[in-house]
Amino acid sequence: MVIVNFKTYLESTGRKAVELAKIAEKVSKETDTQIVVVPQFADIAAVAKAVEIPVFAQHIDPIKPGSSTGYVLAESVKEAGAVGTLINHSERQMKLTDIDAVIRLANEKDLVSCVCTSNPPISAAVAYLNPDIISIEPPELIGTGVAVSKAQPQAVTKTIQLVRKVNSQAVILCGAGISHGEDVAVALKLKTQGVLVASAIVKAKDPYSIIREFADATKQ
Amino acid sequence: MVIVNFKTYLESTGRKAVELAKIAEKVSKETDTQIVVVPQFADIAAVAKAVEIPVFAQHIDPIKPGSSTGYVLAESVKEAGAVGTLINHSERQMKLTDIDAVIRLANEKDLVSCVCTSNPPISAAVAYLNPDIISIEPPELIGTGVAVSKAQPQAVTKTIQLVRKVNSQAVILCGAGISHGEDVAVALKLKTQGVLVASAIVKAKDPYSIIREFADATKQ
Amino acid sequence: MVIVNFKTYLESTGRKAVELAKIAEKVSKETDTQIVVVPQFADIAAVAKAVEIPVFAQHIDPIKPGSSTGYVLAESVKEAGAVGTLINHSERQMKLTDIDAVIRLANEKDLVSCVCTSNPPISAAVAYLNPDIISIEPPELIGTGVAVSKAQPQAVTKTIQLVRKVNSQAVILCGAGISHGEDVAVALKLKTQGVLVASAIVKAKDPYSIIREFADATKQ
Amino acid sequence: MVIVNFKTYLESTGRKAVELAKIAEKVSKETDTQIVVVPQFADIAAVAKAVEIPVFAQHIDPIKPGSSTGYVLAESVKEAGAVGTLINHSERQMKLTDIDAVIRLANEKDLVSCVCTSNPPISAAVAYLNPDIISIEPPELIGTGVAVSKAQPQAVTKTIQLVRKVNSQAVILCGAGISHGEDVAVALKLKTQGVLVASAIVKAKDPYSIIREFADATKQ
Repeated sequence: MVIVNFKTYLESTGRKAVELAKIAEKVSKETDTQIVVVPQFADIAAVAKAVEIPVFAQHIDPIKPGSSTGYVLAESVKEAGAVGTLINHSERQMKLTDIDAVIRLANEKDLVSCVCTSNPPISAAVAYLNPDIISIEPPELIGTGVAVSKAQPQAVTKTIQLVRKVNSQAVILCGAGISHGEDVAVALKLKTQGVLVASAIVKAKDPYSIIREFADATKQ
Repeated sequence: MVIVNFKTYLESTGRKAVELAKIAEKVSKETDTQIVVVPQFADIAAVAKAVEIPVFAQHIDPIKPGSSTGYVLAESVKEAGAVGTLINHSERQMKLTDIDAVIRLANEKDLVSCVCTSNPPISAAVAYLNPDIISIEPPELIGTGVAVSKAQPQAVTKTIQLVRKVNSQAVILCGAGISHGEDVAVALKLKTQGVLVASAIVKAKDPYSIIREFADATKQ
Repeated sequence: MVIVNFKTYLESTGRKAVELAKIAEKVSKETDTQIVVVPQFADIAAVAKAVEIPVFAQHIDPIKPGSSTGYVLAESVKEAGAVGTLINHSERQMKLTDIDAVIRLANEKDLVSCVCTSNPPISAAVAYLNPDIISIEPPELIGTGVAVSKAQPQAVTKTIQLVRKVNSQAVILCGAGISHGEDVAVALKLKTQGVLVASAIVKAKDPYSIIREFADATKQ
Repeated sequence: MVIVNFKTYLESTGRKAVELAKIAEKVSKETDTQIVVVPQFADIAAVAKAVEIPVFAQHIDPIKPGSSTGYVLAESVKEAGAVGTLINHSERQMKLTDIDAVIRLANEKDLVSCVCTSNPPISAAVAYLNPDIISIEPPELIGTGVAVSKAQPQAVTKTIQLVRKVNSQAVILCGAGISHGEDVAVALKLKTQGVLVASAIVKAKDPYSIIREFADATKQ
């Protein structure tokens, strides 16, 4: 599984979000790999209309329908076509109570919950809250090109070990600094089930090649 | 001018956002009134495609393109079709520095900036930051059905007086509790240039009638 | 163990904080019960000077010494006399990453860490982060006079069960609505090691009697 | 007027806060200059007991007495000996509504309100909220050693001009990068009434000399 976070790059905003999602879809079909795209809120509808691969929101708020002007309602991203959401991305960290509330909310609304964590104990803590996916991303490596799977294999291994003690079902991913197919291959050798990536793909001159490289690496 | 904030009501989410926007557009054309609709982020694209009246975002973040997962980029809502944005709504209050930054950002990106304020001195303070629109909404009246224009006419009058000392151009609106055409008429008599409304329209059994009533009231 | 949170009540601010702490100390000595007092930041120094029982801060921030004007430095509350701190009180909730960081920080600075939690899974999640004390306080009962130990005994029992799976050392307390000695006795029967209380003592006409009642109840 | 913000430096925490405040008091008496010290919350009581010069808090929260565990109550810092407070320091920025609320609160409690601002329009905006002191501190210069009075004299002059249009009473200070007596002298020539300083004094090997230099510069 490869989750591609579009962040707020101009290279993945608006029409370019749709283009990038189509490239991801193409690779997904060619390689029979599960690739998820994570565009900005305002781009979800166009992206979800344009592709058949899963679309996640970057965040949802722990709110009920009503008076929350400017916040992100689960129902809203779902009706726009999202089938899941990132939660607690290192750039959008949440209160512990809100992480718990949003995981429940996602579950109620049939949205896949993917919680981002920054170290093994936090990953284990989150495992108790029963998200569908846990993705460990040491924040000091994000955007560096230094891959978590190579720079901190022990963090990944420890995460898996701690999470599995209390949660046998959550999909475990890793992210941060993933730049080459080999980084992905190493991540899978460490027993993760995939990667969460962003800049390596979004900022690439040739996104197709790099997504393809990542997808191929998951097949080895 | 009537700005209709869709908030996060289910009655104005997804397809219902599009339906409500179409009703607003119908009234806008019938009565030649400027009506602005303010759907949730994920609904902007569909609404902007469906109607020709102006669409605002409910909020944008003071960020540059790049690494702000889960935040709202000006370029993103603009490319989805928004032509303006609410700023500092009472349900999404911002730091003073961020209000200043977002007004500048909206200006750079050719988005209309509509800052919500809660009392006359705050309105005057905001006037110095040169937003396009200032809307005073005493928070204690929001959602009550007790109209600001009737319950606190002096707050509205004082706002206009203070704002005009330093800013001759900003459009001045009022909101909170506006429920009847007469509330709108009183608001205009107090020399505002329109109203910011939400629940009275979104939660109405017959939104057409109430939007029409509001629009007609602006014409008297 | 009885932890008395002074919150921001006027009845426990300034000189009254010192008076209340002295009453707590008196009961602590009379009954040989461990009683901890938790005054506001600005009151820590005077309270810690006046009594020999442990004093906790209500919160510390996940900051290093330097440029954090207006935030609460661990070293600062420690030098004022605090020997521990509440973390993530329901009135001062923190991001998950910050809870982790503050527990580590407290540990480094030899401050006792007492993390407040709102339900069993969150308690278990926190248990992984190795705080010294975990106190479950269902927020809907805080300040109600309806005791958690009586209204939600299963939440308390479940918390203990989940926490003990991963953490055999943390002291487990419960709080919210504790008003009578019997509420404390029930809490202990449920196998907690004490209670976290506030309004029942701070707002009492005769704080001595109620602290004494609570302390006696821990001895039964 | 010289306001010395102790920030959260270890050099100005605990006993060292008291020592530094005594040095400031010595200079204040020697030179008949108004010098204000701004220690951390937990240090206010000891500092206020040790010196006769004014002590400000670094921040207070817009709360009423009661259930705000971990927040800073005006009454609490006042009873500890503070006679004023910084508001909206660039390291502790506040929502516009909260700045308004805290200025009112300080006024009610007879605390001097000193609002920090980052540019001329924001300073003018704040002027409408009637604080006692406005201190402009361009955030990009804080801690650089490049003095605002020399690097951005036009920002200071423009601030004074805009503020005086609407507020004839507020004391106007400037800060950021003030390192030498000459920086202070220039600030006064620009018609400010003093400076807000921090690292130049707190981190100095010989704080006495530098405070004395600043105080002398205000007398030229």
